[in-house]
Amino acid sequence: MAKAVLLLLALLPFPSLALNQDFCIADLPQAAVTADDFYYSGLAATGPPIAPFNVGLSSAFAARFPGVNGLGISAARADMAPGGVVPLHWHPLATELLLVIDGSMVCGFISAALNKVYARTLHKGDLMVLPQGQLHYQYNLGNATAVALSSYSSSNPGIQILDFALFANDLPSEVVSKVTVLDEAQVRKLKAMFGGSG
Amino acid sequence: MAKAVLLLLALLPFPSLALNQDFCIADLPQAAVTADDFYYSGLAATGPPIAPFNVGLSSAFAARFPGVNGLGISAARADMAPGGVVPLHWHPLATELLLVIDGSMVCGFISAALNKVYARTLHKGDLMVLPQGQLHYQYNLGNATAVALSSYSSSNPGIQILDFALFANDLPSEVVSKVTVLDEAQVRKLKAMFGGSG
Amino acid sequence: MAKAVLLLLALLPFPSLALNQDFCIADLPQAAVTADDFYYSGLAATGPPIAPFNVGLSSAFAARFPGVNGLGISAARADMAPGGVVPLHWHPLATELLLVIDGSMVCGFISAALNKVYARTLHKGDLMVLPQGQLHYQYNLGNATAVALSSYSSSNPGIQILDFALFANDLPSEVVSKVTVLDEAQVRKLKAMFGGSG
Amino acid sequence: MAKAVLLLLALLPFPSLALNQDFCIADLPQAAVTADDFYYSGLAATGPPIAPFNVGLSSAFAARFPGVNGLGISAARADMAPGGVVPLHWHPLATELLLVIDGSMVCGFISAALNKVYARTLHKGDLMVLPQGQLHYQYNLGNATAVALSSYSSSNPGIQILDFALFANDLPSEVVSKVTVLDEAQVRKLKAMFGGSG
Amino acid sequence: MAKAVLLLLALLPFPSLALNQDFCIADLPQAAVTADDFYYSGLAATGPPIAPFNVGLSSAFAARFPGVNGLGISAARADMAPGGVVPLHWHPLATELLLVIDGSMVCGFISAALNKVYARTLHKGDLMVLPQGQLHYQYNLGNATAVALSSYSSSNPGIQILDFALFANDLPSEVVSKVTVLDEAQVRKLKAMFGGSG
Amino acid sequence: MAKAVLLLLALLPFPSLALNQDFCIADLPQAAVTADDFYYSGLAATGPPIAPFNVGLSSAFAARFPGVNGLGISAARADMAPGGVVPLHWHPLATELLLVIDGSMVCGFISAALNKVYARTLHKGDLMVLPQGQLHYQYNLGNATAVALSSYSSSNPGIQILDFALFANDLPSEVVSKVTVLDEAQVRKLKAMFGGSG
Repeated sequence: MAKAVLLLLALLPFPSLALNQDFCIADLPQAAVTADDFYYSGLAATGPPIAPFNVGLSSAFAARFPGVNGLGISAARADMAPGGVVPLHWHPLATELLLVIDGSMVCGFISAALNKVYARTLHKGDLMVLPQGQLHYQYNLGNATAVALSSYSSSNPGIQILDFALFANDLPSEVVSKVTVLDEAQVRKLKAMFGGSG
Repeated sequence: MAKAVLLLLALLPFPSLALNQDFCIADLPQAAVTADDFYYSGLAATGPPIAPFNVGLSSAFAARFPGVNGLGISAARADMAPGGVVPLHWHPLATELLLVIDGSMVCGFISAALNKVYARTLHKGDLMVLPQGQLHYQYNLGNATAVALSSYSSSNPGIQILDFALFANDLPSEVVSKVTVLDEAQVRKLKAMFGGSG
Repeated sequence: MAKAVLLLLALLPFPSLALNQDFCIADLPQAAVTADDFYYSGLAATGPPIAPFNVGLSSAFAARFPGVNGLGISAARADMAPGGVVPLHWHPLATELLLVIDGSMVCGFISAALNKVYARTLHKGDLMVLPQGQLHYQYNLGNATAVALSSYSSSNPGIQILDFALFANDLPSEVVSKVTVLDEAQVRKLKAMFGGSG
Repeated sequence: MAKAVLLLLALLPFPSLALNQDFCIADLPQAAVTADDFYYSGLAATGPPIAPFNVGLSSAFAARFPGVNGLGISAARADMAPGGVVPLHWHPLATELLLVIDGSMVCGFISAALNKVYARTLHKGDLMVLPQGQLHYQYNLGNATAVALSSYSSSNPGIQILDFALFANDLPSEVVSKVTVLDEAQVRKLKAMFGGSG
Repeated sequence: MAKAVLLLLALLPFPSLALNQDFCIADLPQAAVTADDFYYSGLAATGPPIAPFNVGLSSAFAARFPGVNGLGISAARADMAPGGVVPLHWHPLATELLLVIDGSMVCGFISAALNKVYARTLHKGDLMVLPQGQLHYQYNLGNATAVALSSYSSSNPGIQILDFALFANDLPSEVVSKVTVLDEAQVRKLKAMFGGSG
Repeated sequence: MAKAVLLLLALLPFPSLALNQDFCIADLPQAAVTADDFYYSGLAATGPPIAPFNVGLSSAFAARFPGVNGLGISAARADMAPGGVVPLHWHPLATELLLVIDGSMVCGFISAALNKVYARTLHKGDLMVLPQGQLHYQYNLGNATAVALSSYSSSNPGIQILDFALFANDLPSEVVSKVTVLDEAQVRKLKAMFGGSG
């Protein structure tokens, strides 16, 4: 259906002037494209809490919301329980614009140019922009759930969560240690936590 | 400051390895760039209600939030009182991704390809994507304020509100009538409402 | 065939050096791509006059001229009989560069930033640039047919003609009135003219 | 002025709603931007005939028509007297869409992928697309002046005319010969014709 | 496989968090994508010497190295025997960044804007940038093989080698002469050398 | 000078035809632009070894080689002594294409989509492509220095080296621990090694 939606945007010029168009998008008759193809309800709820971070995530990237495919925009939502954390991560293909929907949180990023930290406390209604591909994090500051709604400058921003990248695969612990200088015991401990092997 | 922020993203490679960098961005010493340059609080409140639509608008486009300049993303907020309307408009340079923050509303767009209307009722947490440059509108469906938070695939999406474009300038009424087929009396009536002349 | 043409542009490097290439594009043997795939004659004539505007339109967008697909350029032609008008419209995905081929016309656009009108009389050989996504119009000034040849910064610029978008579909008249402040009677009158319902 | 025009497109959101804006673009008050900044008359006439090709050229690239700067489009015009030729050239940064305004001509390009020639005769009203960066040429077929109006997918397409690139500078003739296999005598003969040295 | 590789980059957000993904890329199970899809060994050797230039070429453009498809980068290698030459050519769709791997060479380009030659001698380890679409050449200066490794700002830069474009196809000699002012005898001589006809 | 180089590419159309151009780029007369502005020798040598990785790095990003500014390409070089490592890092704004110039190394990246490792041993002449924004590393496999020459799909790829981002700034150790789950003692140990505080 996503393909149908996209193609819909590229149809014949002067369409209302052509009375007898006979078009067919992909395998669908065009009438099969409806408002629902531009609609997504998946951010109305959050995902299950992820251990050990106590955060629920849900996304509206193109893989889940095909309607944004090719349109240069997408969104995601993070719900941090008290004490909850969005762990260090970055988006390889997009800048993030974060809006606080509820609660208070600290949001920071680490600049690639200077390794300097730009962080501040955000309250409901605040925005912070997190430039493309640079490490960032959030954590809840209060006693209530804090919710962030983020939008991205790509329909497919990608996400690389540091702990999962380092500790949830089969890259041998000694290699992880060699290329990070983390102690190998530390690496093995976190591999056990995140399901990695080696 | 926006220029400073942007340039910050393009500094020397291997910066943490270079001990004695002496850099200067625009007219600012780099130390003048702080987390506040990536932060914006202007969406925490809405603007004053705009007659006759009973809607308050606030934006975080690059002109108001310089931190997004060049990063391909921005945001805006619309608060519709009961009966309130976001009048027909479009964004010449960006796709919009609308999220309902509060209340219920109808959101629709009119496709350029087919002049077909894609509209539906949205509730809190729902998303709808409005493809670049195509006419769209929202209106409140309920008895409480409805709030939409939109993000855009450009730091400078632009906005063209139909009534203001047609009726708030000095384009002569007879020309407006000629190029729209609206009755000239109708044009003059709306010019009076929106402050246009001619 | 359009796909064949596009792929032709991306073949093997150093092709003339490889003596026995065996290539096949899509379902066509490459020999099936000829100069005709880069050629279009559809702008040599105009379309039938469109009521009530007394204008004939023909286009060379990618849907009609597949050879421009992916190449960032396309064209269209408008022939205004005496009194003829190109009604208010915009292109969601492209800037237009208009050249007067014959006759004299007024050409104007309304800026999104300021709602200000930029209009002037154009004569044969004159150019005017109409920035992406912004409302514009032309009308014949003289007693002879006026012809404009426009090129666009996209192979698929799209076009949204205001009257067709508002009055040629099934968006209910009361909704059109609500989101434009046009009188509902005016909306119904124009819906009758442009074939809309509701 | 070009800078002023460009910046005009990026002004404050919701501008008609803000009553007392005080803006200043570059060194100009915004009122200094007028419709003339979007207008160009330089293609109404052609340039003087260029020997030995008997062609007159005029262009509306950004350097001459600042209004197109940053908008992804530009244009040029070639007037070929009987026997006239637009010599082999290419545009490093744009695809060309050629429209015949008057007369008949042969238009061809040589594909980079296959070194194959795609050429055909064009008559008034015909279009031919010439993909970015690939060698092309035109020549008049008839007894009357033939005129082509071309548009480009960039405001700054650039142009590299083969004879001028090879023979109008100080690249030593023996180097030209070495890197082209042209006879050195041939190179010297053409350097004399096109004003080169060495 | 290239398609598989590309799609791999666009999979589900939060993948490590989703336990039971069932994905299938093109016709391959995703497990079929391996490190080898991102690897290419074809630049380890050069191609056979090309007469009359005494240069061997090998490329890692997307047509040969599908792993770079869509990623905006590719590479090629040129080995010039003593006296060897990389003949005049340009890349329609990319800037080239040349690095000398071995030996010494002259590298030059001819600017489209001014027809001016920018050339210099390069030694091992030197870089020279050759802007998109502009004529350039290299030739060996020494008694040993000189090797250049070039990278390109596109996965499909294209290449148009002047001699092959002019003399290796069936464009009639009189047309080549007409659009270049080369003597027709010269054209015929080089057509014989490069395998053209007409 | 970089600005001068860039502007040089955008000069007047048909320049060789205009006899008396009077141009001035930035504050330089155009004659001040020479071949040296397109040339860079900084990759001929490597930088000093960086502890504890035993790797020397040098780059030709736009900040050091202004000639590539705006042209979508740049390069860097890494020299790994025996046992040397290029530690985990990524480029926020570019894909990397790595070529082995000398020796043998392991090169791997961790995909954002699946957290899967794609790694292999590379020998002299081998290429590996490392998609934009994704974690990667190299280490020397042999007893001799191994040298990689990488090119990037941007003139300003940026680089974020994990250890420097985490441990070379003033982000408090307890925050680093909270957002990575690394033990705080481990964080403090590495902060001591990389010069961080807090």
